[in-house]
Amino acid sequence: MLPTTPLMTSEFSDLQVFMAERRQRVDDAIRQSLPSRHSPSARLTEAMAYAALGGGKRIRPLLVYAACELAGGSAEQADVAAAAIELLHTYSLVHDDLPAMDDDDLRRGRATCHRAYDEATAILAGDTLHTLAFELLASAGNYSPIQRVELIQTLCQAAGAEGMAAGQMQDMQAERQLLTLAALEEMHYLKTGRLITAALKMGITASGCNDVSLASAVEEYGDRIGLAFQIQDDILDVVGCADALGKSSGADEKLGKSTFPGLIGLEASRQRARQLCDQACAAISDRAPPNSPLLTLARYIIERQH
Amino acid sequence: MLPTTPLMTSEFSDLQVFMAERRQRVDDAIRQSLPSRHSPSARLTEAMAYAALGGGKRIRPLLVYAACELAGGSAEQADVAAAAIELLHTYSLVHDDLPAMDDDDLRRGRATCHRAYDEATAILAGDTLHTLAFELLASAGNYSPIQRVELIQTLCQAAGAEGMAAGQMQDMQAERQLLTLAALEEMHYLKTGRLITAALKMGITASGCNDVSLASAVEEYGDRIGLAFQIQDDILDVVGCADALGKSSGADEKLGKSTFPGLIGLEASRQRARQLCDQACAAISDRAPPNSPLLTLARYIIERQH
Repeated sequence: MLPTTPLMTSEFSDLQVFMAERRQRVDDAIRQSLPSRHSPSARLTEAMAYAALGGGKRIRPLLVYAACELAGGSAEQADVAAAAIELLHTYSLVHDDLPAMDDDDLRRGRATCHRAYDEATAILAGDTLHTLAFELLASAGNYSPIQRVELIQTLCQAAGAEGMAAGQMQDMQAERQLLTLAALEEMHYLKTGRLITAALKMGITASGCNDVSLASAVEEYGDRIGLAFQIQDDILDVVGCADALGKSSGADEKLGKSTFPGLIGLEASRQRARQLCDQACAAISDRAPPNSPLLTLARYIIERQH
Repeated sequence: MLPTTPLMTSEFSDLQVFMAERRQRVDDAIRQSLPSRHSPSARLTEAMAYAALGGGKRIRPLLVYAACELAGGSAEQADVAAAAIELLHTYSLVHDDLPAMDDDDLRRGRATCHRAYDEATAILAGDTLHTLAFELLASAGNYSPIQRVELIQTLCQAAGAEGMAAGQMQDMQAERQLLTLAALEEMHYLKTGRLITAALKMGITASGCNDVSLASAVEEYGDRIGLAFQIQDDILDVVGCADALGKSSGADEKLGKSTFPGLIGLEASRQRARQLCDQACAAISDRAPPNSPLLTLARYIIERQH
């Protein structure tokens, strides 16, 4: 197993280039997919763009690109899948931020959608971003109908009542309750992990590659870094500052939510994140060249400060 | 053009049989599609079933069946498309009823989803019904990948930011404003008409029939009865009673919404609904046999009392 070492300057700078270029691509693809200003409701269109183009780490799209390119596909082949999963993720953020859910005022360094507009508009903007994710995949001319159907299935299964939304429901029900570590891990696996693994699977599908063993290695990688990502999120909620995070820090504690640092302490949380990162990289070490963005992304995920 | 005559007893009884049988089919298909009780969130699964299996006229599924069968397809071929569009419609009802939107307490004769559960659960149940509609279509083994992609495209385009959701946004913005008749018609075309026409188009796609002129005739029928359906809804909101409607009557007036009876009076609204019904039937008169459920459904839509 590869020991986790901090990213070296040269690795970090390669990763920065990869991230900047692919973020630009996915932003362009999202921008092109949004309805025009001449659509029947300018307010709705505006709110969709506000939520979808307001920055963000774009982790899921980056994973789509990295997996697609590892499987021999081009960045161009990954564009639509990357945009679709980010639209889906954005809808979930808009709805999770609503007063009846996490009641957040700040997201990606700006007012949340329902604060910038109003609740009804935010509910509808989330709904239309949700629909748009599937419309984009169903209409993607550079994928075969079979690929499109597979991409939609993967995204639905990860997002729906047996995935992300069930995780959010568990999260709501767990407020003011102390979860066991196993329950906390299940909740995060559903809420975050399922979509992260879906991103990787969608990258492979978008590439047109049918290598089952590669897909399975990349999915194992996804399961590990999905959890590592969430542990780092919990750590940053304790030690981060709102300016860098772009959202309120200490929000978990305010809502009485169980967190990894709360359950096992800060140092053990950091160790667990590093261990998961090592396991993720080991899962793909036979298939990924040493400079693969997947390997550096795994370390970025546990080293990031926002 | 066929003059609208009230449904005769024999026609009505044939239609009753058609409606009862097809409603049973679509309820079975919806029930089978819902996640099991062993899914990660029992509460979410329960709320989805509460919303999706709580009765309702099932107008959109009935139109899917009628169009599919007119195009030479079987009821079995229509099942999944019918279930998917009803799940999509149900998600929109759950979200439209929320306090930040229409704030309704009663739907289909029972407490609305957020009253029976809570707001967060209703938002998530709507979201998961939305995802499930597309998952169902993407996974439908009895359609080819091309058919599945077409069905998803049709449903997305009708439901999204240039369709149903834009209509709901216009509806929210129009509260306490007097709309022109043209603006009212556009709003209803988006909010209700687009999905009704999509139901018919999906029925044709599900049948496997590629007859473009039939599809276009049936879509014209859909555009007319979609508006007729909404006019009758407005009429019932004025003259109906809550017991028969299964939702609050007088709700439009309470919210200061523009309605057809409010703008042009009750009698002119009835005349307009009859005229649209005649035009709808005329659009398909060359293709539909006299006993086609589409012809009787059009009259049912403007004669129904709930």
